Amino acid sequence: MKLSQIGEFGLIKQIRDTFTPPIPPFNKGGREGGVVVGIGDDCAAIKPREGFLIITTTDSLTENIHFKLDYIQPFQLGLKSIYINLSDIAAMGGIPLYALLSLSIPPSFSVEFMNEFLKGVKDAADRYKVSVIGGNISSSKNDFSIHITIIGEIEKEHMVLRKGAKAGDRIFVTGWLGDSAAGLEILKRSQKTEVRSQIDKKLKERHLIPTPRLKEGRFLAINNLATSMIDISDGLASDLKRICEESGVGANIFTENIPVSEELRDFTSHRKSFEPIDLALYEGEDYELLFTVKSEIVENLKSLWNNKMTSITMIGEVTKGEINLIHKSGGTIPLQREGYNHFKT
Amino acid sequence: MKLSQIGEFGLIKQIRDTFTPPIPPFNKGGREGGVVVGIGDDCAAIKPREGFLIITTTDSLTENIHFKLDYIQPFQLGLKSIYINLSDIAAMGGIPLYALLSLSIPPSFSVEFMNEFLKGVKDAADRYKVSVIGGNISSSKNDFSIHITIIGEIEKEHMVLRKGAKAGDRIFVTGWLGDSAAGLEILKRSQKTEVRSQIDKKLKERHLIPTPRLKEGRFLAINNLATSMIDISDGLASDLKRICEESGVGANIFTENIPVSEELRDFTSHRKSFEPIDLALYEGEDYELLFTVKSEIVENLKSLWNNKMTSITMIGEVTKGEINLIHKSGGTIPLQREGYNHFKT
Repeated sequence: MKLSQIGEFGLIKQIRDTFTPPIPPFNKGGREGGVVVGIGDDCAAIKPREGFLIITTTDSLTENIHFKLDYIQPFQLGLKSIYINLSDIAAMGGIPLYALLSLSIPPSFSVEFMNEFLKGVKDAADRYKVSVIGGNISSSKNDFSIHITIIGEIEKEHMVLRKGAKAGDRIFVTGWLGDSAAGLEILKRSQKTEVRSQIDKKLKERHLIPTPRLKEGRFLAINNLATSMIDISDGLASDLKRICEESGVGANIFTENIPVSEELRDFTSHRKSFEPIDLALYEGEDYELLFTVKSEIVENLKSLWNNKMTSITMIGEVTKGEINLIHKSGGTIPLQREGYNHFKT
Repeated sequence: MKLSQIGEFGLIKQIRDTFTPPIPPFNKGGREGGVVVGIGDDCAAIKPREGFLIITTTDSLTENIHFKLDYIQPFQLGLKSIYINLSDIAAMGGIPLYALLSLSIPPSFSVEFMNEFLKGVKDAADRYKVSVIGGNISSSKNDFSIHITIIGEIEKEHMVLRKGAKAGDRIFVTGWLGDSAAGLEILKRSQKTEVRSQIDKKLKERHLIPTPRLKEGRFLAINNLATSMIDISDGLASDLKRICEESGVGANIFTENIPVSEELRDFTSHRKSFEPIDLALYEGEDYELLFTVKSEIVENLKSLWNNKMTSITMIGEVTKGEINLIHKSGGTIPLQREGYNHFKT
């Protein structure tokens, strides 16, 4: 059935039914908070918890820019649209609480497609105890476009910013880098074909359904372990530059230390035009965390880190100079290239 | 100069420069609040004022759906994109504080266009003491699309919802209805021509630059005058239906009482296919407030209303039945048509 058959009000009802009731008001340590007015009024209203700051971020996914519908399922798109936003909350060390959806939808889309998409959004939101409390829908002439705002909370004393890195700090990343870019390459080439291997499948999933590192970001924040933090959405090179600019520092990155997965090595071993390190440095959408820690607490960090969290790897150190890539086999090269840049042709 | 020449990071810098610094933290009645982290990190962070709820809303304007660039200037588009969102804050009786911008922009757009657009956003935000604290930009394959989230605050005891109207309440609207639709008609027909009269000019402006009724909404809320409220964005008929559905009531609307401007009467007098009342009932984007008040305080409302606010008009009463249109000259007709509906063909 086409959306045009149920109309705007039919779709709004579906959205409201999907996300009502919101997660009930919570009470942690005697400090109440929660949804006062959810979907269905001019605004949503929430009660902030005493002693917390409100944090908020917005990100978008647009058809034919960020994704193509011939390789991503609507359910996966729903998941991803929430997860990439939660990744920004993770990068502050915060707790996500609420989401607003603003969707521009071609009228030719089917009700079934939107149902599956909303199921994905709901699944992702439920998994991280996020209530969808409002939004907006309109038609679109051409492409499906998803704009999501997440609202969360954090204690001021635990918030981790991009600024704060100091010369001598060690640089860490969570997980493995470059998988998402490899997954996208596979998706683009094999749109209509079956999965060829478990390796391909894993890389594709890393692109389609990134994991927001909320547990890890929160752990670093609560224990005051990180001096600065960002999520890697545009590639390690671009996001490291942002940390360095905001903190007024440079960095030495030991390229051999950049964590690349077995799957990525397998992928590049069959494709001469791809180098694992290049994918890790200059391609985006890994949604891992990049953070800095004081050198004297590196051992403490490693001992505190527990196996319920994804692995972390030290990839370099903060300096007073430029950003350099240091190759074990071939000297030092200033970082010049950047990751994905909208508008650049 | 094309956006592709300054790239994503050039545009982000421009946005950051435009909206930094945010409005300083405020202190009203000893209760502090304000921006703790503005544009330039993974999230923005704000300190909510003690004793207030946080309210939030999101709305979008998409090229070729909500506007065409051959009749709206980028500066006007910037103003309008903020004002339509502030209108939702007004409809709760709230105070707007912060905005997040999520923009999808064709790379062919010029830097000058975006500059003018951002100036409009800044002008509108400054006028209502709103700080733009974050956002997101991406390229777009086809159309320019503007998604804005506004965050504000309200005292729980003063918040006005869509539900709350009771049989016997009187129904009011602010300002005049239907002007925006007439303005749009003029704009569509005379895209490249000069303004033909002061009347045309005024109607066009009512479409291009709606005034959010923040002062009026806040006044109604603070004085606990309204039992329910909504802003009229999809036409009186649609938005009245929303009030009635949420409140579980009906309404009698005296169509002769619906306020239509001299300019609208002049417009329709020259165009036989348009009736003022139809434009007021079924066309959108007036952004006036529709609200209900208890019958016993109607006199009090009128005496309290001051001339710094736009006029208000009583247009009907809340009932236990259906929604009826009562014409002075021709009996009672159940309301059936609705206003603008995305997706309906």
